[in-house]
Amino acid sequence: MRFEHETLPQRVHFASGDARAAVRTEVERLGGARVMVIATARQAERAKSVTADAPVVVHHDDVAMHVPLATAERARAAAARHDADVLVCVGGGSTTGLAKAVALTSGLPIVAVPTTYAGSEATSVWGLTEGGRKTTGVDARVLPRAIVYDATLTLTLAVPMSVASGLNALAHCVDSMWAPRTDPVDQALAGEGIRALAAGLPAVVAGPSVIEGREQMLYGAYLSAVAFSSAGSGLHHKICHVLGGRFDLPHAQTHAVVLPYVLAFNAPAAPHAERRIAEAFGTGSALEGLQRLRRAVDAPTALRDYGLGEPDIDDSVPAILEAAPADNPRPVTADGVRVLLRAAWEGADPATAGVRPWSRHTGVPE
Amino acid sequence: MRFEHETLPQRVHFASGDARAAVRTEVERLGGARVMVIATARQAERAKSVTADAPVVVHHDDVAMHVPLATAERARAAAARHDADVLVCVGGGSTTGLAKAVALTSGLPIVAVPTTYAGSEATSVWGLTEGGRKTTGVDARVLPRAIVYDATLTLTLAVPMSVASGLNALAHCVDSMWAPRTDPVDQALAGEGIRALAAGLPAVVAGPSVIEGREQMLYGAYLSAVAFSSAGSGLHHKICHVLGGRFDLPHAQTHAVVLPYVLAFNAPAAPHAERRIAEAFGTGSALEGLQRLRRAVDAPTALRDYGLGEPDIDDSVPAILEAAPADNPRPVTADGVRVLLRAAWEGADPATAGVRPWSRHTGVPE
Repeated sequence: MRFEHETLPQRVHFASGDARAAVRTEVERLGGARVMVIATARQAERAKSVTADAPVVVHHDDVAMHVPLATAERARAAAARHDADVLVCVGGGSTTGLAKAVALTSGLPIVAVPTTYAGSEATSVWGLTEGGRKTTGVDARVLPRAIVYDATLTLTLAVPMSVASGLNALAHCVDSMWAPRTDPVDQALAGEGIRALAAGLPAVVAGPSVIEGREQMLYGAYLSAVAFSSAGSGLHHKICHVLGGRFDLPHAQTHAVVLPYVLAFNAPAAPHAERRIAEAFGTGSALEGLQRLRRAVDAPTALRDYGLGEPDIDDSVPAILEAAPADNPRPVTADGVRVLLRAAWEGADPATAGVRPWSRHTGVPE
Repeated sequence: MRFEHETLPQRVHFASGDARAAVRTEVERLGGARVMVIATARQAERAKSVTADAPVVVHHDDVAMHVPLATAERARAAAARHDADVLVCVGGGSTTGLAKAVALTSGLPIVAVPTTYAGSEATSVWGLTEGGRKTTGVDARVLPRAIVYDATLTLTLAVPMSVASGLNALAHCVDSMWAPRTDPVDQALAGEGIRALAAGLPAVVAGPSVIEGREQMLYGAYLSAVAFSSAGSGLHHKICHVLGGRFDLPHAQTHAVVLPYVLAFNAPAAPHAERRIAEAFGTGSALEGLQRLRRAVDAPTALRDYGLGEPDIDDSVPAILEAAPADNPRPVTADGVRVLLRAAWEGADPATAGVRPWSRHTGVPE
């Protein structure tokens, strides 16, 4: 047991149906007297209602995906012009991202009110895009001081989007179990995240407007972000980034398809992680738990259904080998990646096709 | 799901055998150039060795149990006289407590190097004693900025003391499951703490100098403190405080004896907590897990062995009723407390004697 774990300071306020009161409370705690509200135009009404009891000086709806630098500059100027002392962002990842861009240069505290399962509200990672290039960084100032989770705000999130976003959060949890900076605290939080998402996902599919399922999803998304931002990107996320970047595959579906194959690949070499994942699912094996959940929510099964061509498999192997974490529990070989990708491409059963027995001696599939 | 959870900022550095390098790293991160080291005279040599690579300006060994105010004042004066900018404390609860007393008035950051399983290093609770009266409070300034856990420093902690202290940490975890401010995050951390302590306690008994068991104990003690300080005191701790205060019973043994009876009492009314505890123990029921562990480490079984007289049972019922948390999962009645105490006094089997079936309708034992 050898690790360094940094716990970040944050208040988390779960209050289904009570975002308005909770936002007021959190703004007061921060001593806010001049609130800048950030939300897309589409969410403007909701943002107004949620911040109705806070001392708002400006509503800012100039939000764009991936936080273009020009968008960030306009938001920073608006904060300065209105002499804002607290930022309240209501929305998904792009909205939270814009609030972070303002906090990065101004140091203003953020109260985040998430309406999706993106999880950005629980990390100190910021991102900015300029000329199509994304720059990311880590800064303590961008971590929202408080999060208000109100599950009633997620009821309008359509089921397919909820499932995709929830499986993405689940991938954060699973990959956290063996990611480069993983530690026992991350693993405990990731296990709790899996528990919550495994309960929430089928519940949301069965009854999209039942609040308990939505609460589990938000709670699981929160934990997945806390664990993942501490543990770092594991093999799963490296593979998905390579595939997504090269072939423009849909983000959420790529994650949903690839996850069981990476789990099957790593599990024999990471028995401790395998056990923790299985326990969180409450199943005999980790893969069994993941597959049962994927079937329950009718998750996508093959990359060829989302635009990956058969020749793309061989093409992406070198980039994946380069991106793969050096300390992945199972050595990542060209042959291993090829087998994994081919199985994911055709949607083969990961229990048999994704992984062949692994030898600790040779470090390659036997 | 309705809660407010405050995550406190802290770095945790697990480095068995490497406290010296880790202390240096943590002091550097804090920009420390003038370190005040706090440790008892008995731990002076160890403290010197652990801080050998840090810029120490004073070693302070004037430490006393329960942090008497005069002791705190002398330590504060020493910190000011030597113009210290970082405090490093090496030792158990009293030593950490003294560092906190200095931080409380000076705001100096603390690097804590715990040598017991007390857990004080992971909380923002301070305590001071004046004229036999203890005052406690909560202040963000007293939370150590970093903890260095080096299990080799705990190898000299005798097995009986390790068991008593470990069971005390376990009681923090179990009580956190239903304490007044408990929330899912606390419960996840408490569950992980139970897991670690259930592995560590028998390992320490079987091989007191095997480092892995000691690491699990430190890790479990850390988590127990994080969970408990967030969740607050539950019924178990209220009962133990009343008994300890009135009859001068030994602290650790009282906790060790009482815990299974409180678990048996609360479990039928707290099925979710019961499940979480059972899962952490990996047993069919929570009580089964706790009792198996207690047998494995030969834990004390009856309060009458530690000085509680039979008439003390009835005597303490009113005080316990007054102290019991209003929202304990099972209503705390005079009859309920009497049955619980009597069983703990004579060491009866908690599965049958400690709890009678509980009716949700009448709120009293049937």
